[in-house]
Amino acid sequence: MEVCSICKEEEPIYYQRHSGLKFCRECFIKYIKKKVRKTLGKKIIKQNVKIGMGLSGGKDSLVMAYLLREYYDPIPNSEIIGLIVDEGIEGFRKRGIKIAVEFCKKYDIPYYIDTFEDHIGYTLDRIVERAKEKNITANPCTFCGIIRRRILNSMALERSCNYLAIGHNLDDVAQAVMMNYIEGDIKKLVILGKSIEHPKFVRRIKPLKYIPEIEVKLFADLVGIKYHSEPCPYSSLSYRNEISEILNLLEKKHPGKKYSIVAGFERLVKYLPLEKDKSICKYCGNPSASGICKVCEILRRLDII
Amino acid sequence: MEVCSICKEEEPIYYQRHSGLKFCRECFIKYIKKKVRKTLGKKIIKQNVKIGMGLSGGKDSLVMAYLLREYYDPIPNSEIIGLIVDEGIEGFRKRGIKIAVEFCKKYDIPYYIDTFEDHIGYTLDRIVERAKEKNITANPCTFCGIIRRRILNSMALERSCNYLAIGHNLDDVAQAVMMNYIEGDIKKLVILGKSIEHPKFVRRIKPLKYIPEIEVKLFADLVGIKYHSEPCPYSSLSYRNEISEILNLLEKKHPGKKYSIVAGFERLVKYLPLEKDKSICKYCGNPSASGICKVCEILRRLDII
Repeated sequence: MEVCSICKEEEPIYYQRHSGLKFCRECFIKYIKKKVRKTLGKKIIKQNVKIGMGLSGGKDSLVMAYLLREYYDPIPNSEIIGLIVDEGIEGFRKRGIKIAVEFCKKYDIPYYIDTFEDHIGYTLDRIVERAKEKNITANPCTFCGIIRRRILNSMALERSCNYLAIGHNLDDVAQAVMMNYIEGDIKKLVILGKSIEHPKFVRRIKPLKYIPEIEVKLFADLVGIKYHSEPCPYSSLSYRNEISEILNLLEKKHPGKKYSIVAGFERLVKYLPLEKDKSICKYCGNPSASGICKVCEILRRLDII
Repeated sequence: MEVCSICKEEEPIYYQRHSGLKFCRECFIKYIKKKVRKTLGKKIIKQNVKIGMGLSGGKDSLVMAYLLREYYDPIPNSEIIGLIVDEGIEGFRKRGIKIAVEFCKKYDIPYYIDTFEDHIGYTLDRIVERAKEKNITANPCTFCGIIRRRILNSMALERSCNYLAIGHNLDDVAQAVMMNYIEGDIKKLVILGKSIEHPKFVRRIKPLKYIPEIEVKLFADLVGIKYHSEPCPYSSLSYRNEISEILNLLEKKHPGKKYSIVAGFERLVKYLPLEKDKSICKYCGNPSASGICKVCEILRRLDII
């Protein structure tokens, strides 16, 4: 009988292609817990830390929350809270929120829900419609990403979080890196890879950045996390999906390449300059190098402000 | 009738997808000549410059030579010479060399031929065999690239060239950039994008780096350059071919992405550190940061030195 490469006893349930290792259920769960803990490190998992977790109800954010809860549970004066954003996507978002809320209740995690509508007066659906009316061809994901990022930051800032934890997995990060490599966008590469030190920005962390999507999903299933698995109705329009397919093809032929893209990027980004946002956006007062921040730039293009 | 977007008179023979422009024969030829001249710039096309051109007999190197000859022809005290490397690939290389030599004779360009065998005592075929015997799984292209690069540099150095011109087109450069992004290899990215200032290195230039392969080929056909079009028998084994397919797919869906990869890389590489090769290789005396150069590393792995 085949046995787990780690304990040499149990029956394997997962074969990790890039390492050649076979894992049984227990050893796989231990492996993920240990790897994510190592990614975070002792500088983050310590006393007197408050973490805001962006929760969508999908597998990534809930696996992240599951692990963070376990790491911080025994640590005195530490706190984790759930930050939920309702973008306003008809027939999709409410179901994700319901699942995120159930998760928080089950594990006794305080949570807060903010909406696009409260913050900018428009739901994402309405923004997408408005962009169509104005013949603006930008992808819904671009609007959504920029605005959601801002709202999550405000929510974490308001509640004095030391870190804002985002559930991006290895696939997500590799896609983002590759998209910016293709565009050759140095500013976006820097935003992706470096923390902006500014009293108005909460430092972002990505505990799952080294865990492939397939392993996040397996972990969620093994420990019995109930998650929202519908894809966003806008995601099929996404350029990101094409890049995702390309990277899956590459990973299939050359296991380990998603990881090498991300690890290589982390080495590379250290050399890229972090522009200090010395001035502020003239519309909303948020830090912005150019005098108008990305969110207000979008809202102005859509004639919302 | 459809007309050329430039002269608005002649019938177009080429549609450039990323710009939406249609070119007639004459306007396309002019466009390429102008674009490559601009890539080189006035710092390179000037008096008292001697250029060594790496010539394989393929379309890229011969289009490059055709253009450089035209640019330098009216410039006093300038000189271009052909540098041909015989790697020793049975049934392939000799035909390319024959074509390169005919080209040089036709245009009255002095040329020199050096062989792998003269420089390191082994043909590429013999190196590939030897690697097999030793169970070394490295790609033939890796051996070939590193050794050919060294030989071309020696040939240019010996003949006091100010620059070594290499016929890499936009596709070649985009592939190399992408391969190193995927590996996350900062050293190789630096070597690819920066010039090493060292008395033992001739500065490399890539006049065709912004011209897509398809346009190089079209130019060659339009001006009647006879070139060697067989693929190298080793190239099908190449990881590069996979990356090439991926980039072709991307370019097809999103015209202009090959260019944005290369242009973005050129902005990015400026920030990466150029390690100075302060020490020298203990075997051959060439500059090397680690005390053993890439060529000698290969030769030692193969038990040749």
